Amino acid sequence: MTTFVFRRHVTIEWGHCDPAGIVFNPRFFELFDASSWMLFEAALGVKAQDLARTYGIIGIALVDVKANFLKPAKFGDKIEIVSHVSEFRHSSFDVEHKLTVHGALAVEGSETRVWAVRNKPDAEKITAAPIPPDVIARFDTARS
Amino acid sequence: MTTFVFRRHVTIEWGHCDPAGIVFNPRFFELFDASSWMLFEAALGVKAQDLARTYGIIGIALVDVKANFLKPAKFGDKIEIVSHVSEFRHSSFDVEHKLTVHGALAVEGSETRVWAVRNKPDAEKITAAPIPPDVIARFDTARS
Amino acid sequence: MTTFVFRRHVTIEWGHCDPAGIVFNPRFFELFDASSWMLFEAALGVKAQDLARTYGIIGIALVDVKANFLKPAKFGDKIEIVSHVSEFRHSSFDVEHKLTVHGALAVEGSETRVWAVRNKPDAEKITAAPIPPDVIARFDTARS
Amino acid sequence: MTTFVFRRHVTIEWGHCDPAGIVFNPRFFELFDASSWMLFEAALGVKAQDLARTYGIIGIALVDVKANFLKPAKFGDKIEIVSHVSEFRHSSFDVEHKLTVHGALAVEGSETRVWAVRNKPDAEKITAAPIPPDVIARFDTARS
Repeated sequence: MTTFVFRRHVTIEWGHCDPAGIVFNPRFFELFDASSWMLFEAALGVKAQDLARTYGIIGIALVDVKANFLKPAKFGDKIEIVSHVSEFRHSSFDVEHKLTVHGALAVEGSETRVWAVRNKPDAEKITAAPIPPDVIARFDTARS
Repeated sequence: MTTFVFRRHVTIEWGHCDPAGIVFNPRFFELFDASSWMLFEAALGVKAQDLARTYGIIGIALVDVKANFLKPAKFGDKIEIVSHVSEFRHSSFDVEHKLTVHGALAVEGSETRVWAVRNKPDAEKITAAPIPPDVIARFDTARS
Repeated sequence: MTTFVFRRHVTIEWGHCDPAGIVFNPRFFELFDASSWMLFEAALGVKAQDLARTYGIIGIALVDVKANFLKPAKFGDKIEIVSHVSEFRHSSFDVEHKLTVHGALAVEGSETRVWAVRNKPDAEKITAAPIPPDVIARFDTARS
Repeated sequence: MTTFVFRRHVTIEWGHCDPAGIVFNPRFFELFDASSWMLFEAALGVKAQDLARTYGIIGIALVDVKANFLKPAKFGDKIEIVSHVSEFRHSSFDVEHKLTVHGALAVEGSETRVWAVRNKPDAEKITAAPIPPDVIARFDTARS
């Protein structure tokens, strides 16, 4: 299946970096999170802040995330982040992020998220709901 | 007026620091914000997360903040933050924070906050409400 | 004096916001810090990460910062940040940042920074050095 | 092998949380990073900021990290983080972090780090060095 890809460029800021002069690891998870929202906004044609209202969800809740650091990124580095959904399941899906610095793979990230709704009987609880087929279809670029 | 003082100790973490090896300035505003919540929790005897419900407010919204950096703080430094309300007005108040590193004044911060409620006719809007006298009284340590 | 202005657009991310659904205040100081670096990069034509080496400085160290919050910014808001140096002095200068949300002024920030060098006899110490006239001249847009 | 365990308590702050009212995931990686430094400080009896100088390393560089989110943590929650080295290898090791909220497992994290030194011929490069046996021995609590 051909799949929708979202790519963006970010310049590493002074405040992203630690005393070793390289990006402090939690900053990569901020980048991944933002890229996942942007990926859905771009694929669905719905603004990120309207996804919840449009689909009756709380959000695309993270249940699992990992990252692999191959090369450091430094202040001023112009990085590219390429993100796509690698698999959709009934109510969850995986997002893969590849971050390159000057063309070299620097960080690989992968997230598992659920299509999260509020539990009807207990509004404090969050549960995973089936992902609508038309949502999944929007990520299939072969379709168009 | 004698006033309630909240003091805490924090050890500067690797991830708080920038490539110059000193605390990145936005981190101080995280420390101030947390200290303001802790100050109110301690003075009022109400858990920070219960302040909104207990007093029918949204929170103690920040309208103005400034900081003065006199000495840097570095990874591993054990700092002390001393906070108190320097003035209560009708619906707003000022909090002062003094941060010392090994006894030397390093950062002075001062915040102006309002006792914030949701606007009845327009729930999206936030307005300032009068601060209850019993809230103000709890900060007067001469009383006890 | 006509002065060099740097402007950029940022979209507020989910992770910038707090439980009230608005930008957590320390995030604005991250935005200001990054804008100050970008302002110098643009005015001087030297990459931010090369400023230290090019001018023999440690950086443009922050000694004082304040912000005034007029309107909240929310997830998905497209903001504009306009920054300029409002005054150059012997070894310090002021940067002003105006942040607008949909054209309305939301946050005003102002920083005082020094042209910081390592102290020769005591390399641990940071001192302020005179700002080179050609640096100041680059901010004078009337010149060109 | 009985292994050294580091445990600490943290209260979730307002600024750690996102618009859903729960901890924004990158904050957990800040907590893990700080806990890893504290674990080494406690096991080795060397202050975190002195580890580099004491052992001739740059640090304990992260090459891989993952987290599993089982339950959300909210503003005001008092969490416990329990960390230990689950395996030492020639020049790398794994740290496991278990974060509980009111006794229930909320987040599991695991990091792979290397004993990182500057590459002699190319000081810009970072390489992994053998972990000294006496460092590893300090984590063996059966020894004492």
